[in-house]
Amino acid sequence: MTDTKKRSTTKIVAISAAVLAAGAAGAAAANAAAPAAADRPAAKADAADRNLTRDTHLTIAAAVKAAQASLDAAAKEGQKVSVAVVDRNGNTLVTLRGDGAGPQSYASAEKKAFTAVSWNAPTSALMGRLSQTPNLKDIPGTLFLPGGAPVQAKGAPVAAVGVAGAPSGDLDEKFAQAGVAALNG
Amino acid sequence: MTDTKKRSTTKIVAISAAVLAAGAAGAAAANAAAPAAADRPAAKADAADRNLTRDTHLTIAAAVKAAQASLDAAAKEGQKVSVAVVDRNGNTLVTLRGDGAGPQSYASAEKKAFTAVSWNAPTSALMGRLSQTPNLKDIPGTLFLPGGAPVQAKGAPVAAVGVAGAPSGDLDEKFAQAGVAALNG
Amino acid sequence: MTDTKKRSTTKIVAISAAVLAAGAAGAAAANAAAPAAADRPAAKADAADRNLTRDTHLTIAAAVKAAQASLDAAAKEGQKVSVAVVDRNGNTLVTLRGDGAGPQSYASAEKKAFTAVSWNAPTSALMGRLSQTPNLKDIPGTLFLPGGAPVQAKGAPVAAVGVAGAPSGDLDEKFAQAGVAALNG
Amino acid sequence: MTDTKKRSTTKIVAISAAVLAAGAAGAAAANAAAPAAADRPAAKADAADRNLTRDTHLTIAAAVKAAQASLDAAAKEGQKVSVAVVDRNGNTLVTLRGDGAGPQSYASAEKKAFTAVSWNAPTSALMGRLSQTPNLKDIPGTLFLPGGAPVQAKGAPVAAVGVAGAPSGDLDEKFAQAGVAALNG
Amino acid sequence: MTDTKKRSTTKIVAISAAVLAAGAAGAAAANAAAPAAADRPAAKADAADRNLTRDTHLTIAAAVKAAQASLDAAAKEGQKVSVAVVDRNGNTLVTLRGDGAGPQSYASAEKKAFTAVSWNAPTSALMGRLSQTPNLKDIPGTLFLPGGAPVQAKGAPVAAVGVAGAPSGDLDEKFAQAGVAALNG
Amino acid sequence: MTDTKKRSTTKIVAISAAVLAAGAAGAAAANAAAPAAADRPAAKADAADRNLTRDTHLTIAAAVKAAQASLDAAAKEGQKVSVAVVDRNGNTLVTLRGDGAGPQSYASAEKKAFTAVSWNAPTSALMGRLSQTPNLKDIPGTLFLPGGAPVQAKGAPVAAVGVAGAPSGDLDEKFAQAGVAALNG
Amino acid sequence: MTDTKKRSTTKIVAISAAVLAAGAAGAAAANAAAPAAADRPAAKADAADRNLTRDTHLTIAAAVKAAQASLDAAAKEGQKVSVAVVDRNGNTLVTLRGDGAGPQSYASAEKKAFTAVSWNAPTSALMGRLSQTPNLKDIPGTLFLPGGAPVQAKGAPVAAVGVAGAPSGDLDEKFAQAGVAALNG
Amino acid sequence: MTDTKKRSTTKIVAISAAVLAAGAAGAAAANAAAPAAADRPAAKADAADRNLTRDTHLTIAAAVKAAQASLDAAAKEGQKVSVAVVDRNGNTLVTLRGDGAGPQSYASAEKKAFTAVSWNAPTSALMGRLSQTPNLKDIPGTLFLPGGAPVQAKGAPVAAVGVAGAPSGDLDEKFAQAGVAALNG
Repeated sequence: MTDTKKRSTTKIVAISAAVLAAGAAGAAAANAAAPAAADRPAAKADAADRNLTRDTHLTIAAAVKAAQASLDAAAKEGQKVSVAVVDRNGNTLVTLRGDGAGPQSYASAEKKAFTAVSWNAPTSALMGRLSQTPNLKDIPGTLFLPGGAPVQAKGAPVAAVGVAGAPSGDLDEKFAQAGVAALNG
Repeated sequence: MTDTKKRSTTKIVAISAAVLAAGAAGAAAANAAAPAAADRPAAKADAADRNLTRDTHLTIAAAVKAAQASLDAAAKEGQKVSVAVVDRNGNTLVTLRGDGAGPQSYASAEKKAFTAVSWNAPTSALMGRLSQTPNLKDIPGTLFLPGGAPVQAKGAPVAAVGVAGAPSGDLDEKFAQAGVAALNG
Repeated sequence: MTDTKKRSTTKIVAISAAVLAAGAAGAAAANAAAPAAADRPAAKADAADRNLTRDTHLTIAAAVKAAQASLDAAAKEGQKVSVAVVDRNGNTLVTLRGDGAGPQSYASAEKKAFTAVSWNAPTSALMGRLSQTPNLKDIPGTLFLPGGAPVQAKGAPVAAVGVAGAPSGDLDEKFAQAGVAALNG
Repeated sequence: MTDTKKRSTTKIVAISAAVLAAGAAGAAAANAAAPAAADRPAAKADAADRNLTRDTHLTIAAAVKAAQASLDAAAKEGQKVSVAVVDRNGNTLVTLRGDGAGPQSYASAEKKAFTAVSWNAPTSALMGRLSQTPNLKDIPGTLFLPGGAPVQAKGAPVAAVGVAGAPSGDLDEKFAQAGVAALNG
Repeated sequence: MTDTKKRSTTKIVAISAAVLAAGAAGAAAANAAAPAAADRPAAKADAADRNLTRDTHLTIAAAVKAAQASLDAAAKEGQKVSVAVVDRNGNTLVTLRGDGAGPQSYASAEKKAFTAVSWNAPTSALMGRLSQTPNLKDIPGTLFLPGGAPVQAKGAPVAAVGVAGAPSGDLDEKFAQAGVAALNG
Repeated sequence: MTDTKKRSTTKIVAISAAVLAAGAAGAAAANAAAPAAADRPAAKADAADRNLTRDTHLTIAAAVKAAQASLDAAAKEGQKVSVAVVDRNGNTLVTLRGDGAGPQSYASAEKKAFTAVSWNAPTSALMGRLSQTPNLKDIPGTLFLPGGAPVQAKGAPVAAVGVAGAPSGDLDEKFAQAGVAALNG
Repeated sequence: MTDTKKRSTTKIVAISAAVLAAGAAGAAAANAAAPAAADRPAAKADAADRNLTRDTHLTIAAAVKAAQASLDAAAKEGQKVSVAVVDRNGNTLVTLRGDGAGPQSYASAEKKAFTAVSWNAPTSALMGRLSQTPNLKDIPGTLFLPGGAPVQAKGAPVAAVGVAGAPSGDLDEKFAQAGVAALNG
Repeated sequence: MTDTKKRSTTKIVAISAAVLAAGAAGAAAANAAAPAAADRPAAKADAADRNLTRDTHLTIAAAVKAAQASLDAAAKEGQKVSVAVVDRNGNTLVTLRGDGAGPQSYASAEKKAFTAVSWNAPTSALMGRLSQTPNLKDIPGTLFLPGGAPVQAKGAPVAAVGVAGAPSGDLDEKFAQAGVAALNG
């Protein structure tokens, strides 16, 4: 990454409401971020690249691919499951409520993925930590059941796949790992 | 950014629970992502860089700087406010409940920032859109009152500052803009 | 559909806890509906088909296809959106958080789909009803903004696609309709 | 079921907002799914039966019958309980707050039914699974106390009855089973 | 009922934990109010009837009758609705999710009933009050749409029936009134 | 009170919206149950006393007396607590956040009272039941810590007092019992 | 206020877990802030008075007095209301659910008080501001209906009284003002 | 502190809506407590100092200083954490979501701080209390994991710092203590 070059082009801009309001009226942009206007010389904003950092995320295409791979792996064994992919910020990227999956599976899948990405480990492995620190499971958003598997980039967690609904947690996690594996190679 | 090089080093890894559990035990890591183990030859994961994307974020240092600048700007005028900085994913980075600020100001600041970063515009400008599309304000997490200002990088929203508690929304937004301005130059 | 035959084979079964507990122990089924045991002569349950009704739903495969089609339609026009598919029971089947979509788009897409499936009409059409009955928009789970489109079977709603994040609601709804269209032909 | 025939009659329809808006105006339908208009030749939608699946549900009449039977069974023994019937999608079909039942009984009954339908087993039987997998009880919506009993069709769960408020869980479950039994024979 | 006598026999009792714990152990009462122990001489509680008041409520049998009457009235006209009965304390007594009713109808019915019992008037009548006091509709739990009808005893509200899901609010309220009417005569 | 007479005068009335709307306009009643109009001959409602039941409740004056007595008992021992009184329907009648009481005490007091009134026993006694049925504590609204004490009339629970914030649960419950005792004699 | 003196006696103390754990064990303090141990020489904490500020609050005795005065004022006019007192931090100090008050009144009273203390004005006065800034009412916790009145000390808001349930907001606010007046003179 | 003098100057004022409304109009104060008008002779409010009490709080400047010190301490050891400061009323003063901290850390930090300030002890010490009173951890808002540390003034809790995200709770608490220590000396 060539920081020098980026520094000269990345800018953080403070826009005055007056300018923006005019722009918004012109663009008639109803419910989304308006495309940046061509130039805004009045703002005179200077970039300060030192204020910025860059994070690695899964593309939505990859997240769908992983989720579908998990669902397919379950279907191949005749299991009815729900699947979720959650990113490192804890936001859900994809959910799939599988045909015939129990109603408890949807939220479970999401929470397993949240748990796996939080600690960068499969939830089956994380359950062992509860013998020493049982209250970990009181942290909001978590669920310590097998079925969550982290997606990593250079060893760091970028997302996780969660699966729920199979007759055993081992199966759930096997399907979650199938989802992660679909992103390799 | 030299994609070629990054591609060869970034890897998405599917870790088997067995391996991880062992690693976790060794590290005695109680409640956080364990640092990656030195090597994990068993995993044989291949990176698939095409599955990844990179986003620009504010550092926490920058977010604190912006929030503090907003609070200082308000204090200079004798106003009691709360301040929030929310990132482009909608997650709150910083909150500051100012001395003597009304109890309604804390949640208001957070929602103003969420609104500004969602549409990449100051909330004062966004209020004009309601005359055409009044139901925008029913979207969860939003608040269409002046006092939210986006932080941009290359014109794209990366975060927003929200301020609430001053006797007028114009003042709130002036202070929010002061926070954004602290990130420039 | 041959009701006569189905009536003679469908049965509602009251299972005693004792029987089930034994079965559960044998199956070691940790977290899902155990496959039915081979035979349970003790239960002697008689079916009462008159107590049952059958509903038509989208398969998860179809829901994914629709959601992906909406996302693709948006991408083709360079728009960053989130997509949701909600079934007639109000349960979410699929969510996709598009790359770079604003943080407000995820919940918006879900609520637009919920609204469209509730009234079996595109949300753009439903907005007109608010002029006569403005409080419709206070019903929990609804959002009266363009971008929701129902999926129908024989004219009855079976699901809906919701899209949010484009610069205008008209675009959102165009993409939602593209998702619905992917299920035809 | 004759798929060939149904395929030719079931259609998924993408309706353009313009058409629908006109239809809605004509129907003056204030807050519900408008009955399908007689014909909409402009839509040209083709059905795609492969996108559809059919689920078996309890009728509301059957759900009321089961709930009332549970309440009656409790009354016969002088017990004050609340009763709930939840369907396989996790949505509540019926609730009855019995005369004099404790305030905790209403939510308990609903959660017991949710739990029973999720795992297709009486909640008394499910409690045994917690000795191996204690965190199952952290799944949202569940309650692992006796008093939930599944309603099945061909062995698959279609709903469940939950009862709470009696002096013992065994009584609660006996009454829940009485509700299920009312649907047989 | 001879009130004079009741006054002399009604007692408010402060039970010491020690006594109760013993009693509870003896009764093995798992999850409900244990029947009062035969005598508790140690407590020496004196009744203070002046601390008590009596309220009139619907029986659950009556609430079911009303809800069923509403559902039947809707079915007679081919309408698919959900029904709720809420008591004067704001607690829900009965809910019925009608076959094929839209997913928005369940919560709507409950809120309409809550609104009607709060102001002791049909919700259609209450909507007129919004022209003078529009913010009434911001009160938690309320929904100002036709379809809620109060049940009265001596003119005071004791409960309300709420209906939602028909194509117009007028129909919803007609069915709600049918439920109330079932409790007369 | 002569019940015989009441039976002949108590009526459940179905009011048509048209009549009520007119009445409401006349009364200009903005946000409460309007006093019953003098006579409404058009309604022709017949009472059906069999649909009604009567419950015993604490007056608000009594609830305040009990709560204050608990607070005073704590103050006498130099303890800082919060107090709540919850009625048999689970609705909170009174809350008092004592000077200097910890922030956790407010919700705790309310939940302890809810728990005590639900099972008609002091929460200290109820804790013993958890050894046999640990999942009782997963019921929404409950808290199994000493400090909740039921208020009874003829042995039946009509309300409960909850106290939290003292250095031990035994103290909390002593103060709760002082509140209950204030209603006797 | 003599800052010099206070500085020498007020101390902020960082306690090591080891020391505290021992202290806690000694005090057997189960669920509250343990009284400070006599001396903790090991901590060597230095006070930093500049880090502290002091706020004025209502005593709980005063809050009860105000709430009761509001309830009495309503009773004198035959009105059934609920009352709440909220402090400047937005935390509820007292709630009173009046005999026969509508179920909507409890939450309304609390929100009116929250609103009045947030803007240091009666809610009737605040409603006028909505004509210019209608979205103020979207701020979480607020309710813009008459019936909230601030309690002030030296002109600054320290709490507010909220009343709801009377047939008009003017009455509600009259009773709220009666509560505030009880704290004067 | 000279109480005599303060008593003569502090006043609690009941303001009539009419007066305030006029004042508000004059001040055009849109969304905050208006600065007190110069004099309001009409109100004739008498102070009642006996109704008031004063609490000690952290300034926002101090809270930021503590939070930043915790974050810095973590950074020095290469740990990625989130930090929260909560005051004695349970309200959050500051939150900082550290760069790269896991998504579970934000809520965890807040709850740890809440727990520490509630019982005036480090959360590591409080965990020991659970062996005797395990249900303490069911109190809303609490989290019994190491990483919360109280800030005291004269031994009383005024706030607490919570840290989460490090690989062990011991590290989290070490960083929290660093934040507290920054307020001393």
